[in-house]
Amino acid sequence: MRMSELSERSGISVASIKFYQREGLLPAGERTSANQASYDESHVERLRLVRALIEVGGLSVAAVRAVLGAADADLPIDSTLGIAQYAIPRSIEADSAHSARGDAELERVVAAAGWTVSAQNPGRVMAARVIDSYLRLDHEELLGVLDTYARAADEVARADLGTMAHQPDRAAMAGTVVVGTVLGDVLFAGLRRMAQESITHEVYRGTAG
Amino acid sequence: MRMSELSERSGISVASIKFYQREGLLPAGERTSANQASYDESHVERLRLVRALIEVGGLSVAAVRAVLGAADADLPIDSTLGIAQYAIPRSIEADSAHSARGDAELERVVAAAGWTVSAQNPGRVMAARVIDSYLRLDHEELLGVLDTYARAADEVARADLGTMAHQPDRAAMAGTVVVGTVLGDVLFAGLRRMAQESITHEVYRGTAG
Repeated sequence: MRMSELSERSGISVASIKFYQREGLLPAGERTSANQASYDESHVERLRLVRALIEVGGLSVAAVRAVLGAADADLPIDSTLGIAQYAIPRSIEADSAHSARGDAELERVVAAAGWTVSAQNPGRVMAARVIDSYLRLDHEELLGVLDTYARAADEVARADLGTMAHQPDRAAMAGTVVVGTVLGDVLFAGLRRMAQESITHEVYRGTAG
Repeated sequence: MRMSELSERSGISVASIKFYQREGLLPAGERTSANQASYDESHVERLRLVRALIEVGGLSVAAVRAVLGAADADLPIDSTLGIAQYAIPRSIEADSAHSARGDAELERVVAAAGWTVSAQNPGRVMAARVIDSYLRLDHEELLGVLDTYARAADEVARADLGTMAHQPDRAAMAGTVVVGTVLGDVLFAGLRRMAQESITHEVYRGTAG
């Protein structure tokens, strides 16, 4: 199909498609003349994936390039997972400054959860910065939720990895890893808000009754 | 204290403090002369909170203004929670388009979890868009994790609300709601990455042994 049809099929403007191509997120089409190329179903699928990672997952173009590069390369699946884990929404990338107190508290949580986690895991900086903020903002009471969060994260991660394990081949597994890791953050954040509302009502009903 | 000391104490540049003031995120100081004002401890604390919500939580300035307005006003605590729930990282705000299939699948998850959730809950759009993306991207296998995510979200939300309930007064409770709701997303996303790494090793050890 031609560029115009690719745009129609994917619901993405020609200008955006050209931008994604320049940024290396979309493989070139098959050249059919000096200034025309032909695209196939794989291009439609790739565009949908790019759009979901950017718009639903909140990734930057650079982060999308990194995770798609990992999924395309024939890397071992745990390397693909490692790269997907680094794909953090662009609003939260920023710097990594946090205090030793945040690190120490996180280390306690990791030990209680029985986890073995490398120093390079990108989740460490995310979690340590939040713990650090709780301390700096005088919200020590929020440290009380840490072990519950860690237990819940353990269950969610087991479900994530179970899904990957049942994929037929490495390419399918890589797709599941990338999509599930990036969008799973947003899914959980949404469900948490729904649960909070429901449980608030439950508690109010309880005290009113 | 003067502006220069406020900057030093909070670690935030004078230019940024003036920007936050113009944007209505920081109350005015007490005017001491035509072009000088005096600030106190409450301004230092407010600046730290603004910084954490923007840099660690990934909120936009508009979202910070909304949640701080809610925390400052003497609203019932469930209204404050509702407003804090709308404070979604700026990278994920975007539009709310998603399909009826995503909604239907989400409705099933809500029923299975036993939740009562209003149509306006902002988590609905977040979760429905992710489910919709799983379907569009042909990753139906990822629907298999939904109930586990919902159970984990339920546990996390109970911990969140338990923390609020133990605060001494409404103002302290509002602070806990705002900080815990916004930064809790990032905390969970970090812990999930750590759990994924640890469980991957566990599984590899299992199959290798």
